[in-house]
Amino acid sequence: MTAAIGSNIGKSLPRLEAREKVTGRAEYTHHLRLPAMLHGKILRSTVPHGRIKSIDTSAAAALEGVHAVVTIDDIRKVIPNPYYGPAFHDQPILADGKVRFAGEPVAVVLAADKRIAEEALGLIEVEYDEMPGVFDEVEAMTSNVLVHDELKPAATFPDLAHLKGRKATNIALDYKLRRGDTGAAFGKADHVFEHTFRNQQVMHTPMEPFVSIADWKDGHLTLHSSTQNPSFVRIEMSRLLGLPENKVRVKVPFLGGGFGGKLYIKLEALVTALSMIARRPVKISLTMEEQFFMITRHPCTVTIKSGVMKDGTIVARHCEVVWNGGAYADIGPRVTQKAGFTSAGPYDIDNVTINSYAVYTNRPPCGALRGFGAPQATWASECHTDMIANALGLDKVEFRRKNLLRNGRPQASGTPLRDAALERSMELALERIGWTKPLDRGTAKLRRGRGLAVGFKGITTPTTSVAIVNLSGDGSCNLYIGTVDMGQGSDTVMAQIAGEVLNLDPHAIRVIHPDTDVTPYDMGTLGSRSTFHMGNAVRAAAEDAKGKIATLAKDLGLPEGTNMPLSELLKRKFAMQAGNIIGTGSYIPSYEKPDQETGQTRDGTPFWGAGATTAEVEVDMETGHFTITRLISMADVGTPLNPLAVKQQLSGATIMQLGHTTTEQMVFKDGQLTNGSLSDYKIPGLLDLPLEFVNEPVPGAFDPKGPYGAKGSGEITSITVSAAIGNAIADAIGVHITDLPITPESVFRAIQKAKGTPLSGD
Amino acid sequence: MTAAIGSNIGKSLPRLEAREKVTGRAEYTHHLRLPAMLHGKILRSTVPHGRIKSIDTSAAAALEGVHAVVTIDDIRKVIPNPYYGPAFHDQPILADGKVRFAGEPVAVVLAADKRIAEEALGLIEVEYDEMPGVFDEVEAMTSNVLVHDELKPAATFPDLAHLKGRKATNIALDYKLRRGDTGAAFGKADHVFEHTFRNQQVMHTPMEPFVSIADWKDGHLTLHSSTQNPSFVRIEMSRLLGLPENKVRVKVPFLGGGFGGKLYIKLEALVTALSMIARRPVKISLTMEEQFFMITRHPCTVTIKSGVMKDGTIVARHCEVVWNGGAYADIGPRVTQKAGFTSAGPYDIDNVTINSYAVYTNRPPCGALRGFGAPQATWASECHTDMIANALGLDKVEFRRKNLLRNGRPQASGTPLRDAALERSMELALERIGWTKPLDRGTAKLRRGRGLAVGFKGITTPTTSVAIVNLSGDGSCNLYIGTVDMGQGSDTVMAQIAGEVLNLDPHAIRVIHPDTDVTPYDMGTLGSRSTFHMGNAVRAAAEDAKGKIATLAKDLGLPEGTNMPLSELLKRKFAMQAGNIIGTGSYIPSYEKPDQETGQTRDGTPFWGAGATTAEVEVDMETGHFTITRLISMADVGTPLNPLAVKQQLSGATIMQLGHTTTEQMVFKDGQLTNGSLSDYKIPGLLDLPLEFVNEPVPGAFDPKGPYGAKGSGEITSITVSAAIGNAIADAIGVHITDLPITPESVFRAIQKAKGTPLSGD
Repeated sequence: MTAAIGSNIGKSLPRLEAREKVTGRAEYTHHLRLPAMLHGKILRSTVPHGRIKSIDTSAAAALEGVHAVVTIDDIRKVIPNPYYGPAFHDQPILADGKVRFAGEPVAVVLAADKRIAEEALGLIEVEYDEMPGVFDEVEAMTSNVLVHDELKPAATFPDLAHLKGRKATNIALDYKLRRGDTGAAFGKADHVFEHTFRNQQVMHTPMEPFVSIADWKDGHLTLHSSTQNPSFVRIEMSRLLGLPENKVRVKVPFLGGGFGGKLYIKLEALVTALSMIARRPVKISLTMEEQFFMITRHPCTVTIKSGVMKDGTIVARHCEVVWNGGAYADIGPRVTQKAGFTSAGPYDIDNVTINSYAVYTNRPPCGALRGFGAPQATWASECHTDMIANALGLDKVEFRRKNLLRNGRPQASGTPLRDAALERSMELALERIGWTKPLDRGTAKLRRGRGLAVGFKGITTPTTSVAIVNLSGDGSCNLYIGTVDMGQGSDTVMAQIAGEVLNLDPHAIRVIHPDTDVTPYDMGTLGSRSTFHMGNAVRAAAEDAKGKIATLAKDLGLPEGTNMPLSELLKRKFAMQAGNIIGTGSYIPSYEKPDQETGQTRDGTPFWGAGATTAEVEVDMETGHFTITRLISMADVGTPLNPLAVKQQLSGATIMQLGHTTTEQMVFKDGQLTNGSLSDYKIPGLLDLPLEFVNEPVPGAFDPKGPYGAKGSGEITSITVSAAIGNAIADAIGVHITDLPITPESVFRAIQKAKGTPLSGD
Repeated sequence: MTAAIGSNIGKSLPRLEAREKVTGRAEYTHHLRLPAMLHGKILRSTVPHGRIKSIDTSAAAALEGVHAVVTIDDIRKVIPNPYYGPAFHDQPILADGKVRFAGEPVAVVLAADKRIAEEALGLIEVEYDEMPGVFDEVEAMTSNVLVHDELKPAATFPDLAHLKGRKATNIALDYKLRRGDTGAAFGKADHVFEHTFRNQQVMHTPMEPFVSIADWKDGHLTLHSSTQNPSFVRIEMSRLLGLPENKVRVKVPFLGGGFGGKLYIKLEALVTALSMIARRPVKISLTMEEQFFMITRHPCTVTIKSGVMKDGTIVARHCEVVWNGGAYADIGPRVTQKAGFTSAGPYDIDNVTINSYAVYTNRPPCGALRGFGAPQATWASECHTDMIANALGLDKVEFRRKNLLRNGRPQASGTPLRDAALERSMELALERIGWTKPLDRGTAKLRRGRGLAVGFKGITTPTTSVAIVNLSGDGSCNLYIGTVDMGQGSDTVMAQIAGEVLNLDPHAIRVIHPDTDVTPYDMGTLGSRSTFHMGNAVRAAAEDAKGKIATLAKDLGLPEGTNMPLSELLKRKFAMQAGNIIGTGSYIPSYEKPDQETGQTRDGTPFWGAGATTAEVEVDMETGHFTITRLISMADVGTPLNPLAVKQQLSGATIMQLGHTTTEQMVFKDGQLTNGSLSDYKIPGLLDLPLEFVNEPVPGAFDPKGPYGAKGSGEITSITVSAAIGNAIADAIGVHITDLPITPESVFRAIQKAKGTPLSGD
């Protein structure tokens, strides 16, 4: 190997792609135009629930420049069973006789000119037979309005198999967790508290809207797509087309953000069908407005009931969590399970029952979004924690310290917490905000308050990552991974890991972007899994290569530990600059399947994400306007492999959750979205950031199972932001707001209600 | 693994790419257009040798639509040392102060519209200071006209290092072989014969003309090129640009023929420099006419002197072989060595001296062409064999049988012949033409004759191939190889080899085309090496994967020899359709470096190519017109892995050599090519094929070192065609023609000369 370059682990190296991105040369799917490519524009349903009586495409098809107008009947000719979905095969490629949400794709116009396609949309006549809709998740649990006639779980989710064919229900999944004897424990508890919380529907808002291009040729599909999981798309498209995996190629350049939205099948099945019909490449790129109808985050109603002893020990907890999945399940059932199992919060409670429901409604579909349900669940559980402390007159911090789950103790699922800096992140967040110093409470008009929230999450398991390292004749290195760099800096971190093993400068390593013909399997860039899972795979691949280099040196008769550069070793073997050293590695964590009835497992997560947020707010008691003056988040990311990238991830997650806490909300009226544009739907801008804004990894954290002690960092701070702010506002105004988002209006209403002067609409 | 599918070795499976090619969807570099791409058109020298006094590009640059006009001065700004070449760094990217052949690139016009670029060429004014030229290889040996001032051997050819800086010579390389004591042996010989033969300059004529696209971005080069050796291009471009290999990417789709022409750097350095200058992608695609100036086959003068005993034993042979390399060496020095070492023919001769010279002249450069010099050398040696037999009154077949080299006996280089069906191919060629039956000699006007030639060749060594096999979660298989499928069917044969090991249907295997970011190192698709070298690497990679599958089954606790499909094994390991099995393999044959002075080595070739041709002709004795009525070629290809593909290779080589024997010739006048278009330069058409045309592998041949006993098949029949036809014509007309091509005119002249009535010009 070349001369030692020193360790790069824990160094804030600049991004590998920094120059490309700054000079505008980075590749995105939006840039790509293929010869003879057509553009597709989508006609969307105008009603939230109804049967399609007729679609008249004749006028649109007759418009000059229109190549074709496509409906489900055309699609069925090329894909006979045109239903897809990661958990349930419930979603048709285009509406199939019925529409289930306002905004659902009904038809597509294909044209070489996008503007002509758009113009033609207005010429399509669709007649609907409108049906009553159901929009609220709690109502949907018992409504006679059924969104789907029966459940069709995907074979790839064997734990959903028991739901197959279940009829006459909007409940796509009922997840149960049972630990101890909750009934008995509630009976013995000194106090019982029950509160209900609500989360609104929000959108992922990637700055790069969804875009996919399909190129179908002679029984072989190539997809260029803004997807976070090329391997899944490959496998699901193989299934839809009845092809082996090696006939489907999925290529992904950079992504302009994903946040869980660009997972599973989005536009890919549609463009594929269109390319098969048109026998030309087809591109669909959504507008920012259309993204509201693609995928969103679950609205969710959480009811928590806790049994508490006089000394503050929580002895029992029951959670009812109802996830509004919208019209199609997408990955909602997994959110229901995964967020379900931590919805009792990060506390050591002997008796826990959790019921978590994935429910269909006539809203745009909901899927994974940064935190995978944990932010919604933690909004509830951490506000609930403060409300109990307030009611019992306990110190909120001491109450948490008393009950907090410690490493080695089993969480509600039975899986012990391990290598999690849960308590430490809380203590640091408290310390950084100066919790022990008395707060200047302000004036009667401008009240100040302070809040804390602690949270954790488990990671989807078991999932697999595979990596390949290929060193050329001159010793230069390519790294092949399916991890999608969507802004989180994975290319850089993976190059740091490979470089660490191989003693190479990470910036000299070329990271090959996902292309399923080229990069090996990776389950997906999701759920804070990449640094841990792919990081371990990359490390293994690099170790494999290193071993092969040592073997080569030995075969050449060189003494052990030789310092000869690889280029020279290869030259000796191959008599010229030639050959390769190819290392491969794969990683799957250990796990134990949870019991179907009790949800109990001794090994339910590869690692624990943990963190805490403290917040300080100023509330105008006359208007309800509030300012978040300080927001401190501490996150356990294990070893921060690249501290700069980690900080960017942590602050990104906080900012995103800030929007989900205070400004973002998809507003519906009779199932119609009324604010589906960024002029009406407000995401945080720079001026919306807290005056003091801290996002830091917990120093000294280390997960021995992670690569160099690292674990994921993309979601942790998103978990605790809402409750910390909610608790701070409650601290200021003396009453808890239970529904997100927290707006000046909702604060004003809460103040008025607390005063005993509720407003109309309350 | 899946159920046994039976062996596919030795089956004439249809090509994997058959459908793509027939439906016109196969990808070629010519199809590719990149955004903002410019086209380059080349201005070529009008003089064969001269100094450039001035180039005035102003009028061309002023033409509307012209992006830039580029000369060597511009190129030097981006590539300071703009000289390349596989053996010598003698070739400038554009003429550098001097031109060395008529047709040499002097300037390039860049424009978005190819026609504008072409129009602008006419506006460039170049003033030359013409110099005397040297065009004949024998003259050039001693001429005062020097094509180059000094020799600059490439570091990658360490055996040329002793030539470095050698001045005042056109001899780029003088290869020597010394075996036994030729001087003494000639002294003792009963008879000594000496004849001189000449080969003409011909072109490769790929139906897909040369085309390259460079896309230079931020210190990273991507080349799309019609090249036969992407790995070489990558390494050589890395050297030119001072970049590591992983900053240079070379992608190759299908090739429409290569034949040795598309090796090493051709247009790649030029388009790269242009893309660096323009900061846009640049494409250059040659016209068919321009190909005559890109690369050609060596004209060559061979003088053979043999010492023969009364009983017909050849006891001594001396060969002087002079290769006309044209203005730039390209791979000529290797041709000089490789064809040099077999130029004494396939006979068992104790005393051999060979001098083989690579010589610069002011002609278009010459490189490798199907057979790598062996066809030129064998034209000489096998005509010489017949001429000796005729002179001594020996039976031509018996004379050969007596002297033929047998397996186990050292060839002139000292390397023993092994696993070569040399004699068997001769016997079969004789049998198939019915040699023992008396030939009807025809009439005085229409004379019939019959000819035989036997030949062999060694293979460039040592060279390396690396392969990767990647099996996906559903068990489907991708194969990653740098072998370029240029019509020879390598994709299919490599899939057969991988399928054989892995028990998969070869048509279900996806072969990933060369892309140096993706496919591992391969020395090049050249010199009949792919089936043997890459075949061995593919086999090793597949065996590696197979071993990993067995290990996986064992790790899962399954009994040895389990029949469980891979998809099920992976599902058990990864809990879903996930993961990969990745096998890697590399191959380099054993070898022993030849002694620099004597050329002696005990292991000078990985395998021996061997074959024989018999021909029957009818000659019109009045006009010299002749018809090849029968042409039978038998070739030792070891095991024909895909007999149909092998036959196509054998007949392709024969047809090509038929052109080089009878019709093709680049005709020069004062260094100017006078027939540089396919209307004047005649390649064989269907009507030119012999009436009886047989090309077959020798049954039962087997090379234990090859994959399943196979060896290369692309060149063998090209070796013996010319001499078999030449000998047949001599048999008919009673006199040997010594210069190729054999045309009606040359036959007529020979007849007249034999009659004692030579024509003017003889």
